Amino acid sequence: MSFEKRGEAIDLSHHLSDVARARNPSPLKDMMKYLGRPGVISLVGGLPNENYFPISSVSGEILVPDSFPLEDADKPSSSLSWFWRLFGKSSPAERTTPFTVHRFSDNDKDLTLATSLQYSMAKGLPQLMTMINEFTEKVYRPAYSNYATGIDLGNTDGIQKSILTLCNPGEGVFFGEWTYPSTINTIKPYGIHPVPLKMDSQGIRSDDLRDTLSGWDESVRGMPRPHVLYTIPVGQNPTGVTVGYERKKEIYGVCVDFDVIIIEDDPYYFLQAGPYVPKSDRRPDPLAALSDEEYIARLAPSYLRLDYQGRVIRLDSFSKNIAPGSRLGWATCNPLFAERLERATETSTQAPCGFGQIFVTSTLLQWKYEGYIRWLKGLRSQYKGRRDDFVDCLAEQFSLRETVRTEGHLEGCTVYEASLRAQNIFVDDKTPHVAVLSFVPPTSGMFVWLEVHFENHPLFGTLETTTLEMKLWTDLAEAGLVLGPGYLFSATRGENASRRRGHFRVSFSQCSLEEMKKSSKILSSVFREFMKLKSITVV
Amino acid sequence: MSFEKRGEAIDLSHHLSDVARARNPSPLKDMMKYLGRPGVISLVGGLPNENYFPISSVSGEILVPDSFPLEDADKPSSSLSWFWRLFGKSSPAERTTPFTVHRFSDNDKDLTLATSLQYSMAKGLPQLMTMINEFTEKVYRPAYSNYATGIDLGNTDGIQKSILTLCNPGEGVFFGEWTYPSTINTIKPYGIHPVPLKMDSQGIRSDDLRDTLSGWDESVRGMPRPHVLYTIPVGQNPTGVTVGYERKKEIYGVCVDFDVIIIEDDPYYFLQAGPYVPKSDRRPDPLAALSDEEYIARLAPSYLRLDYQGRVIRLDSFSKNIAPGSRLGWATCNPLFAERLERATETSTQAPCGFGQIFVTSTLLQWKYEGYIRWLKGLRSQYKGRRDDFVDCLAEQFSLRETVRTEGHLEGCTVYEASLRAQNIFVDDKTPHVAVLSFVPPTSGMFVWLEVHFENHPLFGTLETTTLEMKLWTDLAEAGLVLGPGYLFSATRGENASRRRGHFRVSFSQCSLEEMKKSSKILSSVFREFMKLKSITVV
Repeated sequence: MSFEKRGEAIDLSHHLSDVARARNPSPLKDMMKYLGRPGVISLVGGLPNENYFPISSVSGEILVPDSFPLEDADKPSSSLSWFWRLFGKSSPAERTTPFTVHRFSDNDKDLTLATSLQYSMAKGLPQLMTMINEFTEKVYRPAYSNYATGIDLGNTDGIQKSILTLCNPGEGVFFGEWTYPSTINTIKPYGIHPVPLKMDSQGIRSDDLRDTLSGWDESVRGMPRPHVLYTIPVGQNPTGVTVGYERKKEIYGVCVDFDVIIIEDDPYYFLQAGPYVPKSDRRPDPLAALSDEEYIARLAPSYLRLDYQGRVIRLDSFSKNIAPGSRLGWATCNPLFAERLERATETSTQAPCGFGQIFVTSTLLQWKYEGYIRWLKGLRSQYKGRRDDFVDCLAEQFSLRETVRTEGHLEGCTVYEASLRAQNIFVDDKTPHVAVLSFVPPTSGMFVWLEVHFENHPLFGTLETTTLEMKLWTDLAEAGLVLGPGYLFSATRGENASRRRGHFRVSFSQCSLEEMKKSSKILSSVFREFMKLKSITVV
Repeated sequence: MSFEKRGEAIDLSHHLSDVARARNPSPLKDMMKYLGRPGVISLVGGLPNENYFPISSVSGEILVPDSFPLEDADKPSSSLSWFWRLFGKSSPAERTTPFTVHRFSDNDKDLTLATSLQYSMAKGLPQLMTMINEFTEKVYRPAYSNYATGIDLGNTDGIQKSILTLCNPGEGVFFGEWTYPSTINTIKPYGIHPVPLKMDSQGIRSDDLRDTLSGWDESVRGMPRPHVLYTIPVGQNPTGVTVGYERKKEIYGVCVDFDVIIIEDDPYYFLQAGPYVPKSDRRPDPLAALSDEEYIARLAPSYLRLDYQGRVIRLDSFSKNIAPGSRLGWATCNPLFAERLERATETSTQAPCGFGQIFVTSTLLQWKYEGYIRWLKGLRSQYKGRRDDFVDCLAEQFSLRETVRTEGHLEGCTVYEASLRAQNIFVDDKTPHVAVLSFVPPTSGMFVWLEVHFENHPLFGTLETTTLEMKLWTDLAEAGLVLGPGYLFSATRGENASRRRGHFRVSFSQCSLEEMKKSSKILSSVFREFMKLKSITVV
């Protein structure tokens, strides 16, 4: 199917949950034809008077789109940008442009406080939705024509609304075996069960999805065959892996064959750093010189790009690209699902915060589409630099060996195995090497997922892996380093306590280079002691 | 029970819904003890770097607390404050003070963008919660000691979370027979049913609540006896009525006797205008000269003031007092319910928008408690002036008669009946008077609830009342006046189509004095034609 001749979404209404079906259409529709007429007086709304809002103007200073360079991988010592060192109220190096929004304006196109801070439709500010629609069309290029975008309060809100729009209590949803724990916490109280799928260095395995669907036995599983797949395809939380184009095609194909809806939770989409290259071999970033179109074409395509039927709900967020406190994001999906999501919003969160909409909209209006893409490229470069620095720091404290796994869930994948034998060297296959840690260097996002080789620990087999994991976590914390304990990210939390390996999620998004160095040293020294332990007191 | 010696909330955990019970405690608690230690490096959070937020400062101008006078009822022509006429970008008459929030600050107590715009706990900013706690304690003076406050996204969000925390599918919730339609739309899709209670000029009738509870027959009703009452006690939406102290005591007593939880949705609490006095008799406002303590003591007490057991969830909102676009409010309730509400927030909306929190917190920090009370007094005076003006306008176009109802749901209550006989006079009991409209002049809020006397219409009995109501609504809209159709506010929407009277909700919060005058004229002239109709074509 060519991009130019797009069809429309197919009828997927049979996927709606009972709750979603039972929502009433908005009763205000009949009124709207009168309210739009000039001179009509409306005494309908329970709206406070906008002259009584105590905020009489809202202002902000916005960084220029090219605040961060596109290329610093060839200067590792400066890859922590000049910007990181700012800890004062302002810096002469910051280049900003100001904006102010007033209570009223003579120009209909301007943002005003009278509109932005008033009750409004759940749809969000029209200026914001125009920008979002332009962005969605140009960047994700959905494969069908009548897709719709709807604003939400960020992806956690979008996930809850999407899953409750699709699933009834007692149903299951497919997840990667490691996943964002908040999604599990969101669905479990509603009696909706996570059904884990095997993952590899490309994320969820399409063969496991197909096998699970085709072999589904409701009487054995105790629930109907799931019709929803939840996935974080780029820089997955917690594993950091990214689903490539071919894997996405395979997964989408299985979802078409078995009539499954895909919830694509994609907050890290613009943090696609590319492969990690050891410091000594690092070359100028090939993406830095590309045009916007070329750059976008090189990014992993969204499921929307493949979705000719309208069976994807894509969730985008401003949390990673602007600020989490904006509590703003949007869903892109077929118009039926979009309408049901809007009804759910009207009776819960209503429109997103007006102040947040003002700041995000003003930023995008100032930058325009091209400026926002430039900003996103700069952000990518910053996080790429952080990823490189963090893996460099690990390489300084452990000896790393690039190896192709011959067994386990990463079979066939290239991983880095870290041993305590020596420091700051990459070793070849012939060197004796007892791995204590291994990881797939992330190509996107903000996480490294450390796999701990408990099978090489003296107490392995005498204690449960979760016990070893918690002991190591506590030792690290006592030494001054707090990591994300792996069990928190298990889709079936606590149900795989006896597995061979443990995990920690490590975020490289916030710490300074000094903290990265110190973290690696703590990791190395704590591991040295931990691997010698002959007994553990379980408290 | 004295205010000074307050006990603690009783155990009300048996009221929790299955969904609320199934929520996990926050897994982050164990981590917090390490994260607070100086020098500890945390690589736990999936947080973007706050140096990458493109907003480098946030500023605003805030009106001074005494921007609106306390007293203007004796000068009706100026009761529409100078402020209403502002439609420019700024006014020399506005007195404001500025604030700015920077990315970082050396002072721990300052708001910063690094904290406010980052992911944060669902609890909200500590500076805001301190102000909310002081306000709740001083103004509502809860009757038990261990109440808790928790932030939400305004009352619609608070209502959804509260009802889903308390009710399972198939259960019922008590409502006034006329109510805020969004609450009905919120609960119905979840299979939770509104159970309407009779109302009079004091709101929900305590005798009907007791009779309904004591006579509840599960087999007849098809659901268990409801254990939750939803009420808007001040300036009720849509009827405008306010529940006085004695009625609240009666209702609370019934709820103790039958173990019912009260959801007190109270956005209009500070718009307590007091009784309407006809223009000719109007005197200076007795409340204008009171101290803050005296003023607060004169307000209708919150259910919290009576709630010695912890069975009230009170919902406060900044929507009517600051701006709806803040999407901020808070719940006050027992600590068990508060903890479950916080868990629900973590997996749906998360913390409220940081920009909104910055503006509301900065406003309250600047005003302090005394300034906020002064602001609220000024707002009350503005809405009181609007209420007076609107009823004055009706008095100019209809002849009004003050009458005590001898039958129907307002039996024993004083209402204004309006006839088309003459204009701008109050008539006595002996004058012949065919009422077309009647209403209880609201003592609070922003609504007048017009009751239409369809029993005096020539077609009454030959057509359903809802048909007459829709015909009249359409005629008004075609003449340029859009009112809120009464059926929208029925708790049992559409199930009382053959009642004798119809209703319109009229909001006086936004329109200018000129629009009020024009609205009354349209109402009068459309009624004149409508009452003559001999046939209606039903489309």
